[in-house]
Amino acid sequence: MPNEKYPSRLLERAVTEISKLPGIGRRTALRLALHLLQTDATRSHALAESIVKLRDEVRYCHKCHCISDTDLCDICANPLRDTTQVCVVENVRGVLSVEATGVYHGLYHVLGGVISPVDGVGPADLTLDALVARVAEGGVKEVIMALSPTMEGDTTNFYVARRLEGFDVKVSVLSRGVSVGDDLEYTDEVTLSRAIADRQAL
Amino acid sequence: MPNEKYPSRLLERAVTEISKLPGIGRRTALRLALHLLQTDATRSHALAESIVKLRDEVRYCHKCHCISDTDLCDICANPLRDTTQVCVVENVRGVLSVEATGVYHGLYHVLGGVISPVDGVGPADLTLDALVARVAEGGVKEVIMALSPTMEGDTTNFYVARRLEGFDVKVSVLSRGVSVGDDLEYTDEVTLSRAIADRQAL
Repeated sequence: MPNEKYPSRLLERAVTEISKLPGIGRRTALRLALHLLQTDATRSHALAESIVKLRDEVRYCHKCHCISDTDLCDICANPLRDTTQVCVVENVRGVLSVEATGVYHGLYHVLGGVISPVDGVGPADLTLDALVARVAEGGVKEVIMALSPTMEGDTTNFYVARRLEGFDVKVSVLSRGVSVGDDLEYTDEVTLSRAIADRQAL
Repeated sequence: MPNEKYPSRLLERAVTEISKLPGIGRRTALRLALHLLQTDATRSHALAESIVKLRDEVRYCHKCHCISDTDLCDICANPLRDTTQVCVVENVRGVLSVEATGVYHGLYHVLGGVISPVDGVGPADLTLDALVARVAEGGVKEVIMALSPTMEGDTTNFYVARRLEGFDVKVSVLSRGVSVGDDLEYTDEVTLSRAIADRQAL
C-alpha cells in the first residue's frame, strides 16, 4: 500500500512515526496503530510514556557503559564477578546473550557499536578510549572480543588488539565455526571454510 | 530470550509495553527500544506524541464510522460518490484495500469488527444498528459485504442479510475463488472447491 491516502491526519502521522522503526513497514504500522485504537486508552498512554521515559531518563554504567538504572550496574557492582576478564560487546543485547549462556562470570564493556566507515562510525564514536583506560588501570588479564562476526566486527577486533598491544593483557575473540545443532548443508561457505581451517583435535 | 533480566527497569518497562503490540515479541521489542535509544531524542518524543494524539483525539465519521478528522469523512462528503451502494468492511484497512482497487465508487460502512462469540464480540459491539438505520433511511440500493472470508465474516454476512430482509435492498458478498496470478497448486482445498462450485461460463 504505497502512498495510500489515510482518512485521518492523526492516523497518517502515527503510521509514519511507527514505520520509522527498523523492520516495520507502513502496512504493519497501520495494523499496530489500529490495534492501539481498539484497545484501552491507558495502553497507548503506557506505551508512549515508557518510550519517552526510557529515552529521557536512561543512564549508563560509568564502568562498562551498559544501560543501567544506577551509576554502577548490577554486574559491575557484583563482588562475585571475575574482574580479571572483560568481555567486549556492541550493545546491551550482547550482554544479555552472553549472560544467557551462564558460562561467563567476568565483567563487560559495551562499545556502543563497531567501527564502520560506511555508516560514519569511527573509533571516537565508541567507548574505545574508556576500554583502554580500564586495561591501563591494571587488574584486567583478558579482553574477550564478542562483536558481530562481520567485517566491521573484525575491523574493530584488530583495532582493539592494536590499541592494547603495549599492555600485559591477553586479547581473545569468540571462535567461529559450525553452529551447534545446525545441519552442515545450511552452513554458509565462509563459515564452513573457517571451521575447516580452525578444526580441533578430537 | 524468555524472562531475561534486563539491566534497567526503564528498558524492561519499554520492552514490556512494546511487546504487548500484536506480532512483536520481546526480542523485537528490545531491538526497537535500543534503536530509539540510539537515535535522536526527538524521534522518541514524536513517536510517543503521535500515539497519544491518535488515541485521544481520533474521531469517527458519524455516517460510515471510519476514522476521520472531521465529523463527516472525505468519502461520505464527496458528492461524486454513488450513494446507492454501501460497502461493509471490518475496519479502515478494508476501506483502504477497496479504495486501492479504484473500481468502487460507492460509500462505506465500517463495522468495527465481525461477530465472534469466541472473542466475546456480539452484534451490539459493532455498528450493525447504524447500518440498518442507514438502509431504513432509504436511498441505498445495494449493500456489498466485504468482510474477511472467515467463519466469523460469514456469520456476520448472514446476520446482516437477515437484519436487512424486510428492506428493498440487494445484499451481495465479494466472490470467493482462485487468486488472480496465483499458481493453482498454492490454492487451498476449500478455496479451490468453492472456485469449482462457483465456476463461471467463459
